[in-house]
Amino acid sequence: MESLFTPIMKRFEGYAIGKMLKYLDDPEIISFAGGLPSADVFPLDLIRRAAEKSLGENWRESLQYSPIPGEKALIEAVIAYLRRDGIRIGPENIVITTSGQHGLDLVGRLFLNPRDFVVADLPTFGGALAAFEMEDARYAAADLEPDGSNIEAMEAGIKDLLKKGTPPKFIYVVPDFQNPSGITMSLEKRKALLALGRRYRLPIVEDSPYRDLRYSGERIPSLFSLDENQGGVIGLYTFSKMFCPGLRVGFNIGPADVIQKFHFIKSANILNTPKLNQDICAAFLREADLDAHFQAARRYYSEKLKFFLGAMNDHFPDSLGVKWTRPEGGLFLWITTPESIDTHELFFRAIEEKVAFVPGEVFYPKDACRRNAMRINFSYPTQDQIVRGVARLAAVIKNYPAAARG
Amino acid sequence: MESLFTPIMKRFEGYAIGKMLKYLDDPEIISFAGGLPSADVFPLDLIRRAAEKSLGENWRESLQYSPIPGEKALIEAVIAYLRRDGIRIGPENIVITTSGQHGLDLVGRLFLNPRDFVVADLPTFGGALAAFEMEDARYAAADLEPDGSNIEAMEAGIKDLLKKGTPPKFIYVVPDFQNPSGITMSLEKRKALLALGRRYRLPIVEDSPYRDLRYSGERIPSLFSLDENQGGVIGLYTFSKMFCPGLRVGFNIGPADVIQKFHFIKSANILNTPKLNQDICAAFLREADLDAHFQAARRYYSEKLKFFLGAMNDHFPDSLGVKWTRPEGGLFLWITTPESIDTHELFFRAIEEKVAFVPGEVFYPKDACRRNAMRINFSYPTQDQIVRGVARLAAVIKNYPAAARG
Repeated sequence: MESLFTPIMKRFEGYAIGKMLKYLDDPEIISFAGGLPSADVFPLDLIRRAAEKSLGENWRESLQYSPIPGEKALIEAVIAYLRRDGIRIGPENIVITTSGQHGLDLVGRLFLNPRDFVVADLPTFGGALAAFEMEDARYAAADLEPDGSNIEAMEAGIKDLLKKGTPPKFIYVVPDFQNPSGITMSLEKRKALLALGRRYRLPIVEDSPYRDLRYSGERIPSLFSLDENQGGVIGLYTFSKMFCPGLRVGFNIGPADVIQKFHFIKSANILNTPKLNQDICAAFLREADLDAHFQAARRYYSEKLKFFLGAMNDHFPDSLGVKWTRPEGGLFLWITTPESIDTHELFFRAIEEKVAFVPGEVFYPKDACRRNAMRINFSYPTQDQIVRGVARLAAVIKNYPAAARG
Repeated sequence: MESLFTPIMKRFEGYAIGKMLKYLDDPEIISFAGGLPSADVFPLDLIRRAAEKSLGENWRESLQYSPIPGEKALIEAVIAYLRRDGIRIGPENIVITTSGQHGLDLVGRLFLNPRDFVVADLPTFGGALAAFEMEDARYAAADLEPDGSNIEAMEAGIKDLLKKGTPPKFIYVVPDFQNPSGITMSLEKRKALLALGRRYRLPIVEDSPYRDLRYSGERIPSLFSLDENQGGVIGLYTFSKMFCPGLRVGFNIGPADVIQKFHFIKSANILNTPKLNQDICAAFLREADLDAHFQAARRYYSEKLKFFLGAMNDHFPDSLGVKWTRPEGGLFLWITTPESIDTHELFFRAIEEKVAFVPGEVFYPKDACRRNAMRINFSYPTQDQIVRGVARLAAVIKNYPAAARG
């Protein structure tokens, strides 16, 4: 039936990481490729209790259709949770999503006509690229700097598009511990980005999956809170990293007119999010000792990070010409190799040596692809796997044939 | 931010039933409006056991990301379940969806460019209209007949579109106990529809939420099984009506090239369906006595239907000029009033009298709207509510002012 597919879908191949993961079935492979939080920090007892309760007395409601915007109890719990982070909003500013990916899809569908432009960082989150590719998006994108987006380059890109009569639709950023780079945007740049958005009347889409996972440095206010309800920011959140990914629950926040449209799109696209799953997330926000939970998660992940960085120091002498970021939180760091190395090709050599990463190309729009970088997840492997995996990775890079280096 | 929305989204208002339901908060209203299966037939013990098991020994997997196409155990259980119905497919022919609405959205996104045409019945399922409206679909639609689609009129519509150089993309039907009309397509028409699809190389999208809920008459083979894996049919299924709606799990089946694209779209649109919810559905298919379950559900719903039809006979004398369908299964029937009655206006009079239905307009494309019909759900209200509700409905219709009848 291919001839009947839309032109966009004829070439669409989905989220590129999916294609990589199929090579990782071999249990001997040490994978730095996934984005998996560790199950060791999931509050299992709370989850079991909440599931039992949801299927207890009120099982009739839990097993029926439920309101499209989301469960009232969860929406109220989210409002209270966000107040801890300086965000004050009402129920008209929230839609419960079926995860962060769903939140991205809602954004793409609301704003993007085919060939519309998005302002973004290079590299940027591959899942966002995939969601926006379904709308055939193009990008005005600028290389990330160590303190976040290159605001001046973004402005130059916007001006250029305006001159060409093709104004962009929004600015997409992951300000905290960005996926894939691990880079965090400074307070100064956040303020400059907000001013940029206001100057050009461009909404800022702030993707915040990792905000509670800061291991060092000082917490920086979110763009949403800095905007002080001026309506300039749409916030994307998920329970996947702060709680657990398996329930597939997240939420988008923003101006009421945007959220109402998200409700409409959701009504026609998945109808509602399962109440059972929402009940468990509401129990997490209401009943868990959130400070203790996040502290435990931070301790757990920051040890992994420290360990990973130590192993990198041990196995990657300066002479290899390899650089890497040292994130203050999140689940990922970013390794840049000499330009002569193509990490797409390196990936297949690496899995032969039983170690895996995500090639950097996954995090670039197709026309702006960079070949000599890779994303590393440090949160899932054990300490032992980290040591052995980093050693394997160093060997694979060392042995990358000079011939192939062009 | 409205000025930045896409033109389609500027006017999009979602699934029209959503807007109706907000008027039904008053607990005194007897509602024939919803599409709710009755919780009385949900196998609660099985659900509780399955949830406990999913969060038992293998909780780590249940709370993590899971494969985009769906859980292997569920896919295998679906294949076995469909074999009962004469359908033989492999895992490459299935994607697990987040409900039937999600299945419709996948279809719309894969096939429909803006302004593309869909061949459909009048009336047709409102959720499909909503999903396809997001792609700005147009319709070549023909009035349903008592034995299903008007195949000749559909062919005339296709020919007309071909002549105009705007060929349609697919044919959308709900052959069994259609929502909203309750009408079932005859075997003869199913064969003719398949031939029509083949003649014009048009895929048939067969939406099958109610197939197991037949109360009388003989089971008719599905279009998918009649097609005998020629690749001409895409089947849409959901656990919502045969099991329970709260888990938000369904599945699409079809040719491998179509299903692969559905996997790609799903990867960028919600990523994966929660494993917990899939585990519960797999347990239902594998562990429940399906024959006994469906028999109990059929007994329960068919009594409601009989009771509803009896009440209609009692309260709607021929002189009222009101007609209604007598479905052989499903959850809905269709009432047609004299043309002088506008059921949109009648709806607001009805809720004042504490009875509700869904106005027929919800089930028509905007340019083909019919005003003198309504959809009735007979499966959810109690017998007592049915009797009182039908009496109220008759009174509201009788009292519809002659003045308003134009």
